[in-house]
Amino acid sequence: MHVVVNAATSVDGKLSSRERTQVAISGESDFERVDELRASVDAVMVGVGTVLADDPSLTVKSTARVREREARGDSAQPARVVADSRARTSPDAAVVDDSAHTYVLASDAAPGDRRARLTDEDTDVVVAGAERVDLDAALAELEARGVDDLMVEGGGELVFSLFDAALVDELTVYVGSQVIGGRDAPTLVDGDGFTAPDFVALELLDVDRIDDGVLLSYRVQH
Amino acid sequence: MHVVVNAATSVDGKLSSRERTQVAISGESDFERVDELRASVDAVMVGVGTVLADDPSLTVKSTARVREREARGDSAQPARVVADSRARTSPDAAVVDDSAHTYVLASDAAPGDRRARLTDEDTDVVVAGAERVDLDAALAELEARGVDDLMVEGGGELVFSLFDAALVDELTVYVGSQVIGGRDAPTLVDGDGFTAPDFVALELLDVDRIDDGVLLSYRVQH
Repeated sequence: MHVVVNAATSVDGKLSSRERTQVAISGESDFERVDELRASVDAVMVGVGTVLADDPSLTVKSTARVREREARGDSAQPARVVADSRARTSPDAAVVDDSAHTYVLASDAAPGDRRARLTDEDTDVVVAGAERVDLDAALAELEARGVDDLMVEGGGELVFSLFDAALVDELTVYVGSQVIGGRDAPTLVDGDGFTAPDFVALELLDVDRIDDGVLLSYRVQH
Repeated sequence: MHVVVNAATSVDGKLSSRERTQVAISGESDFERVDELRASVDAVMVGVGTVLADDPSLTVKSTARVREREARGDSAQPARVVADSRARTSPDAAVVDDSAHTYVLASDAAPGDRRARLTDEDTDVVVAGAERVDLDAALAELEARGVDDLMVEGGGELVFSLFDAALVDELTVYVGSQVIGGRDAPTLVDGDGFTAPDFVALELLDVDRIDDGVLLSYRVQH
């Protein structure tokens, strides 16, 4: 499986303010780039924190791109994936509506009634791991179900876990021209963090000015 | 006074790991750029957290640049400035050695004995503010003493306070090609942070690939 992490941050690495309100960091050109990237993959993934904070639908917005997917024999929309150890996603969340197939990745610690109420025609609950989702096993299961290209849109806890499990192949970051600040604001990569000298080494592939900011594209060095 | 903030971060906005050990984020070319920038200003400023964690000397390293400063009638080294509300800087810290003049910016809350033990021929304690340093007043006092160009090298708490007081004119950030991660790791701009829609708006001036990373240069929009 090929995994791309894509996110937009302020110049100080924040995904949002300390209140975690959704912030429009990028502009129209980056919106189109992200929509194109979503249209090119088999599935789009977020952590449950992002679902609870932003209620995203994660769908391709361009009708033309949806038609292109269908023309090449793909589903109209990429699948959605939520890393959600305790199955806290609401059955009313946009990410589990009927506009695309959804995989909720849960652990054994997710109560059975929550798993049951999420499961329907369009939504599968995939269980892997005891207390927290075993991402290695869960992504292997997704791959067995046909997900070869996965795009991850955050948040910082999920992105850390994926880097920590050496599951990320590429990283693209749109750096917006603003300062958000805040020692408690969510950043691109949160979690426990890495300790020197065991940081994740990247190779800078491309630098492109887009809208009022800059897009940085990296390959992860394994 | 003209204030430039200059720092190096990982791609996720971290100045260091959660253990706050000093991390070499940039390479040789960026080191030379920073030395050149130091040589061009009247004073180089950090917060006391950086002094306690890294014990930096903040001096210009290149002998040629020191000679150029002298040739144009400047002091051999730019002054050092420490924002240090409670005067916690040790008299043995490198930043108050005799290689350059130093201003310790303290508040009324700094115990008199600590102020006294820091004060000598090369070190002035400038008091402004009740509990915390009043940066507006302290920088005005520095300007009265001849500091027209100030470079700030961090950390994230000081940088937030300066942005919060609308005292920053330019920001240059070297973004290194690694992931540090960590919700508790120090970032470029920490403090309480700004809340939407009151983020600090920047104008992206330049994008330059340096060493294995990229240098982003911004003007602050006031």
